[in-house]
Amino acid sequence: MAAHVFDDAVALARQADGSFIGQTSPAYANMVGPYGGITAAQALNAVMQHPDRLGEPVSFTVNFAAALAEGAFVAVARPARTNRSTQHWIVEFLQQGQTVLTATAVTAKRRDTWSLNEAVFPTVPTVEQLSPLVRNAPMAWVNRYEMRYITGSFPQAWDGEDSGRSLSQLWVRDAEPRALDFCSLTALADVFFPRVYVRRSKRVPIGTVSMTVYYHADQGQISRTGAGYLLGQAQAQAFRNGFFDHTAQMWNEAGELLVTSHQLVYYKE
Amino acid sequence: MAAHVFDDAVALARQADGSFIGQTSPAYANMVGPYGGITAAQALNAVMQHPDRLGEPVSFTVNFAAALAEGAFVAVARPARTNRSTQHWIVEFLQQGQTVLTATAVTAKRRDTWSLNEAVFPTVPTVEQLSPLVRNAPMAWVNRYEMRYITGSFPQAWDGEDSGRSLSQLWVRDAEPRALDFCSLTALADVFFPRVYVRRSKRVPIGTVSMTVYYHADQGQISRTGAGYLLGQAQAQAFRNGFFDHTAQMWNEAGELLVTSHQLVYYKE
Repeated sequence: MAAHVFDDAVALARQADGSFIGQTSPAYANMVGPYGGITAAQALNAVMQHPDRLGEPVSFTVNFAAALAEGAFVAVARPARTNRSTQHWIVEFLQQGQTVLTATAVTAKRRDTWSLNEAVFPTVPTVEQLSPLVRNAPMAWVNRYEMRYITGSFPQAWDGEDSGRSLSQLWVRDAEPRALDFCSLTALADVFFPRVYVRRSKRVPIGTVSMTVYYHADQGQISRTGAGYLLGQAQAQAFRNGFFDHTAQMWNEAGELLVTSHQLVYYKE
Repeated sequence: MAAHVFDDAVALARQADGSFIGQTSPAYANMVGPYGGITAAQALNAVMQHPDRLGEPVSFTVNFAAALAEGAFVAVARPARTNRSTQHWIVEFLQQGQTVLTATAVTAKRRDTWSLNEAVFPTVPTVEQLSPLVRNAPMAWVNRYEMRYITGSFPQAWDGEDSGRSLSQLWVRDAEPRALDFCSLTALADVFFPRVYVRRSKRVPIGTVSMTVYYHADQGQISRTGAGYLLGQAQAQAFRNGFFDHTAQMWNEAGELLVTSHQLVYYKE
């Protein structure tokens, strides 16, 4: 059986010095360089594959320092601090000896405690009530996902009209279904079209600068989610002089909040 | 004129090898180790004081790897990547050769663009309509701030009753007024009492694991804010098996959204 396209994309080869070699994936290409979500997943995978890893990811921040050139990159993951139940990681990607990505991660052994979701699962149509986006996008990565938008999809008309809010909601999963794991969940957390497009209906150059993912789900919840759909929601808080943010949540079909995520995105004009 | 207690606390001495020496500040002590906000401000200051810095901070993530021991620490800030208008930083704090903090920052030259606040300034009483918290807390850092809580203050009774939501809103500034800068704004972004206290009215051990700050304000807006009050708002999205998150916003009195911020916090029980 051929490997899933996602597994091929995030595969890393460990080198004698402890670093990894990865490859950009044409299947997840964006307009310029790869889809940020796949690059983020590769960076998390350098932690997941590290023989010294303790526990599961709880927090992950990735900073996109430069568009990756097509081809190979070196991924260096270093456990900067190992405590009894938490571990702190620094990750860097290099191409031609230049840093193209920085990241930090916290992994932890989780324990059962009092737990509660405060963010409310929004009132939305079911998956079956919605049509998937036709997968004929010029950006290859868009075709790797089945997206059923409820609101805030890619603008139909670039008429520059202020839509009044930048909220997006969609049901989403891998186009070729695949059981969820921490890496694919990280890639999915970047699936939202840029907030500035949704708000302004205007195409301007953009690029994610930094993304943070907080993993509320542990391995058990991720395994139970399997190849099901995720309900994703994202909204900007401010657009200001070249940078906007967004906050995002992703639930599984059972209504469990799997991750909350945030981004800062560069934009022009 | 004596320096402001905050300036003393974040002061760094540059060493011949390019690293800095800082000191923990008894004036900002917390229950165990220093207030996370002052440690975060020290980490950002290692970037701000670095001779190679390009532009102003737009994104900053700090991971608290261990409680700092009282006394000196070494702060290493490295510009991992310098582009035309953005720069990517990796910061580490060391004590006895062990990593106690990791951080990444993105600094940038900002340009005037189309801008808009999407997050709505909440309907709240004015500063004058509220009483400041009496500054007699056992944690020194609490006494460094003038806090006027609107909702979600430190629980009056630890009766274990579910308050229904973890929202906090307060007006806040340095207790001894001081003109805002990027470092003090970073410290203020951590001013919120733990969400788990506000939600559960139960005292459990907690510790911030990771905090991210997105700076929507540039130097001009920070200068105009001066020594005025900030309206801070924070709310959790999920509490799950040992970790909860929060999202936060801070506006100035003119209603400008200065920062949005996020945290992941460890808790027991």
